Amino acid sequence: MSHASVDDHAAHIAELLAPALIPRTEIVALDDALGRVTADTVHSPVDLPLFRNSQMDGFAVRAADVSAAPVTLPIAGEIAAGPAEPAPLEVGSSVRIMTGAVVPQGADAIVPVEDTTVDGDSVTILRARSAGQFVRDRGSDVREGDELVPAKVLLASRHLAALAAAGLNSVLVRARVRVAIITTGTELVTSGTMPKPGQIFDSNSVALAAAVRACGAVDVYRVHVGDNPAAMLAALSGAAAAADLIVTSGGISMGNYEVVREVLEPLGARVGHIAMQPGGPQATAMFNGVPVVCFPGNPVSTQISFEVFVATLLRAASGLPAAVLESREVTSDVTSVAGKRQFLRGRRVEPGRVDVVSGPGSHLVAGLAASDCLIVIGEELSELKAGDTVETWAL
Amino acid sequence: MSHASVDDHAAHIAELLAPALIPRTEIVALDDALGRVTADTVHSPVDLPLFRNSQMDGFAVRAADVSAAPVTLPIAGEIAAGPAEPAPLEVGSSVRIMTGAVVPQGADAIVPVEDTTVDGDSVTILRARSAGQFVRDRGSDVREGDELVPAKVLLASRHLAALAAAGLNSVLVRARVRVAIITTGTELVTSGTMPKPGQIFDSNSVALAAAVRACGAVDVYRVHVGDNPAAMLAALSGAAAAADLIVTSGGISMGNYEVVREVLEPLGARVGHIAMQPGGPQATAMFNGVPVVCFPGNPVSTQISFEVFVATLLRAASGLPAAVLESREVTSDVTSVAGKRQFLRGRRVEPGRVDVVSGPGSHLVAGLAASDCLIVIGEELSELKAGDTVETWAL
Repeated sequence: MSHASVDDHAAHIAELLAPALIPRTEIVALDDALGRVTADTVHSPVDLPLFRNSQMDGFAVRAADVSAAPVTLPIAGEIAAGPAEPAPLEVGSSVRIMTGAVVPQGADAIVPVEDTTVDGDSVTILRARSAGQFVRDRGSDVREGDELVPAKVLLASRHLAALAAAGLNSVLVRARVRVAIITTGTELVTSGTMPKPGQIFDSNSVALAAAVRACGAVDVYRVHVGDNPAAMLAALSGAAAAADLIVTSGGISMGNYEVVREVLEPLGARVGHIAMQPGGPQATAMFNGVPVVCFPGNPVSTQISFEVFVATLLRAASGLPAAVLESREVTSDVTSVAGKRQFLRGRRVEPGRVDVVSGPGSHLVAGLAASDCLIVIGEELSELKAGDTVETWAL
Repeated sequence: MSHASVDDHAAHIAELLAPALIPRTEIVALDDALGRVTADTVHSPVDLPLFRNSQMDGFAVRAADVSAAPVTLPIAGEIAAGPAEPAPLEVGSSVRIMTGAVVPQGADAIVPVEDTTVDGDSVTILRARSAGQFVRDRGSDVREGDELVPAKVLLASRHLAALAAAGLNSVLVRARVRVAIITTGTELVTSGTMPKPGQIFDSNSVALAAAVRACGAVDVYRVHVGDNPAAMLAALSGAAAAADLIVTSGGISMGNYEVVREVLEPLGARVGHIAMQPGGPQATAMFNGVPVVCFPGNPVSTQISFEVFVATLLRAASGLPAAVLESREVTSDVTSVAGKRQFLRGRRVEPGRVDVVSGPGSHLVAGLAASDCLIVIGEELSELKAGDTVETWAL
């Protein structure tokens, strides 16, 4: 796949990952379900409301008894919200009732308290009401067996409320995709270690883990290996046992100490160069039946490769919306390498424009942090003028 | 505050909550910082890159030595990425170098490997390079002391990567606002209990907790009380000890068993009716120095009251974007109560339209779940025709 196109490599990865991204499901408590995605339609196990109840504080009556309002009726009692099995309402009578309380058999309308005057044990109804007024019928919100929350819904508080109102305390959701992250390179040290000359702080592990989580997936395994093939093999074995998908950074270009290439190429990895900047060297493999997607190790290359090749697939598998793609006017002249798709760092400026932020270098991590989108320059373009239209990919 | 306006009540709550929402800060590990908001500008403790390094696999040279390319130079050695303190480059010499490796003193350009041919211990440079080409200078991404990530940034993977690259392993962020949730009402049972006639499943506790979290805050305390004032007092005491802010549902209307009103009114609560539907009865109080915002108990009233009066403030305090407000064409006729602001449930239909979903009743939890926005009908309106413009508030 020497200098394959970005689109071809993306299609190859989509195909490679498809089996790993078939949604598994799991049951989670409602309190843990915010932001998860329903795996299936949830049907209501009950009618909602569960019983006929009052929409108002007032008096339950027979509409026929108050049609000639004003009319005075005896007050037969009181029904509060809460457990109650009220006696049927006698003809020509009334009962004081609270919002949400059971409407007694026989009553078919509620007269709000503000349309009444009370004198001892009797109430004067000042305004006629028709049958059904201010009565919430059983099942008028949703009927037992009807759809309560559809499949593939990103659960927000209002969905959880509806599930709880129907007496459910858990929900079947898509399981998060489990991702293993292996970073490589003897030049990387982690915070807390003073880097020696030639060493840099590892940002790829932190970046990939956060990017995985931002896509609704979960980083179940993270390890850094230097340039030792045995350590790399051990890391891959651990990763394959834990994860649906393995991503690696570094170790796949044409240099002399390329541990990922060294281990995976004999196992049939596809290693090559993609026509893109940053992020040219790319590879894929299968390891113990688990797909492996390998990115170059330059921090910006790692992050952009993940965004371009994996994030979109993970977001779709997680039921999250895709990144926003928009056409915008670039505010400065831009040059690009013909034949490669360039992913520059941009910052959106309203209305409808985008500034180029920092340079194209794949080491400019602070520059990437300062951007809020990628500016995508097509393979066919080598020169753009300020005011030209470019595609932007929101981060 | 009898029938105060929605705007007045919102302004009153904003004022009441302001001291509680002054951002506290906390330090969190980078691995826990995704989606948090920086409390202050983070300055880089180091230059990035940390040292002058190669952008390419190739040969480090003096540009002056290759200006008359093709030219053949001896290969003095090799510098890999990783710890290295290479000797200075002799005049008229070259050194093999890997991407990211330290560029030796004396060298000022990198010739990519594809522009060279190697024969034993010497390399022929096929193309001249000017000083600085393919060399990443120390500090060219960010300089020690310069801004690495600004204040008030919602941290995404690229920000965490920049912090990690600078050797940081934690970041000062705004602490989450701590919210206590007290639900009331003897009619409420939780899932797992068979409701008796007159009882319903509690959805308010689940809904408020999830809504709090969706606003970037945290539900630190949740309790349900029936109609017992002593239990309510105890709940408020526990809540005030744990939280920056207390929200309650139920128990504030004009019925006879109103535990929130009963406990808080003697302590100076403002209890009244707001000119809105759903959600008329509303109250606020201070309890042990902690602000209390009280919503009516109908599930839809609780949820919409939280969204209208508290969510906006919490989102702002958490550094999250405000809800999207848009004008849209309503697809059916709508009637509303003049003098009240109506919050109907809607579903957005592109382009630019909105369907009314379910009825206006404050018990229609499934209807609210099926909506994706509120349709806001102003106090001055009582009748709208299909095609009229309405304001929508995205959920």
